[in-house]
Amino acid sequence: MTTSAAAPTRSFSSVPDLRRPRALAFDVFGTVVDWHGGVSREAADMALRHGVSGDWSLFARDWRAGYPLAMDRVRRGELPWTHIDTLHRMILDGVVGRHGLAVLGEADRHQLNHAWHRLPAWPDAVAGLTRLKRDFPVTTLSNGNFSLLVDMARNAGLPWDAIVSAELFGHYKPDPETYLGCARLLDVAPGELMLVASHPSDLRAARSNGLMTAYVKRPFEEGPGTVLPHVDAGEFDFVADDFLHLADQLGVE
Amino acid sequence: MTTSAAAPTRSFSSVPDLRRPRALAFDVFGTVVDWHGGVSREAADMALRHGVSGDWSLFARDWRAGYPLAMDRVRRGELPWTHIDTLHRMILDGVVGRHGLAVLGEADRHQLNHAWHRLPAWPDAVAGLTRLKRDFPVTTLSNGNFSLLVDMARNAGLPWDAIVSAELFGHYKPDPETYLGCARLLDVAPGELMLVASHPSDLRAARSNGLMTAYVKRPFEEGPGTVLPHVDAGEFDFVADDFLHLADQLGVE
Repeated sequence: MTTSAAAPTRSFSSVPDLRRPRALAFDVFGTVVDWHGGVSREAADMALRHGVSGDWSLFARDWRAGYPLAMDRVRRGELPWTHIDTLHRMILDGVVGRHGLAVLGEADRHQLNHAWHRLPAWPDAVAGLTRLKRDFPVTTLSNGNFSLLVDMARNAGLPWDAIVSAELFGHYKPDPETYLGCARLLDVAPGELMLVASHPSDLRAARSNGLMTAYVKRPFEEGPGTVLPHVDAGEFDFVADDFLHLADQLGVE
Repeated sequence: MTTSAAAPTRSFSSVPDLRRPRALAFDVFGTVVDWHGGVSREAADMALRHGVSGDWSLFARDWRAGYPLAMDRVRRGELPWTHIDTLHRMILDGVVGRHGLAVLGEADRHQLNHAWHRLPAWPDAVAGLTRLKRDFPVTTLSNGNFSLLVDMARNAGLPWDAIVSAELFGHYKPDPETYLGCARLLDVAPGELMLVASHPSDLRAARSNGLMTAYVKRPFEEGPGTVLPHVDAGEFDFVADDFLHLADQLGVE
């Protein structure tokens, strides 16, 4: 391309940046697996056994809403390093009352808390990861604890090359230690690692640490009424409808 | 079983202890992959291109012999934390002269150093891990750096549930932090984790930290003249000829 002296220094071309990453790291909750579907289904089943009726979609969203707040308490140092199983349980104990589930005893709460270990993959996830893995190492980069991510992968058949968890760094996303630590473990430069996520805030933090970014739309992340977040055109290196669409754009057969 | 007052307190039964682990962690170099075969073959190929003749089995054993010594320098604090790619390269630079390979330039040394990322699996390893994985989470527990283990798994088709490397702990085996750290990441008690290894010293260290142990014989680990190490009867929870034999003993179909 020739550029005249009057041309703007930023290109208005809509052709995506064709830099190719050397490795892919995936956000997990919402991006790879359906926390809303998995948690609301397990809660509904358990409630049924106790003769409790309620809105289990709302219950799942209530539980999930406590998650960033709890991690922020760790990130600010109000709580010592606490892994997600423990944070999930603290939040669960706080929300059961609003949903008629204060009746649940210790064994039931423990079982329900482990619903996060058994979340189902989105329909494209296993096939998409299997394709992407042909050309790129694929890892998690999740705030979920290591054993949760191992259990989830075994249960849902997710073909990760490696499990990378915030637990390995003692820092939760969006702390820089997580994005940079993942690149360091994979022995790639930050700019050679691409975060794949359905959450723009996670992607923006990754980008500010030098990573490439791929935004994947998950229109049912919070259930049928999900409002997709706003994303500026050109904000991320790739925008995809699902993992198969991302594989198409990356030229992976 | 009834025991008379005169019976010894230790059982002489040859029936193995049927405690069942909850997860399996594998030593890698020698136990899962054939470092002698892989390194000697790549060295022979490279030497041929340079018109150098030599004993590439001896070269591989020389290179490998420097490895525990180099890690011990890190463990004693004589070197700061240094990962295996760097230690392998330091050792390589020290042994090339003895084998007529001082002629190798930077690019060739870099390539040869990465032979450790491309080691071939023992013939039973992929099938054995695939079977064992049905009943147990299977992870590495290796002094190899994280990215080396990821590359090796992708190259050899090793179906790990997770990569666990000494690099995650900043400690090399046999430091306790490695065995206990692996159990902590998998959220199992040390006694619920079983180390699988072809090296009695590694197994003894694991056992002294409370882990279960499985010794797997690798009669070609150092090439055709390998002398198997001495192991006392009953010293380890399981003794197996290969991973399929271990799966048989653990009752995994």
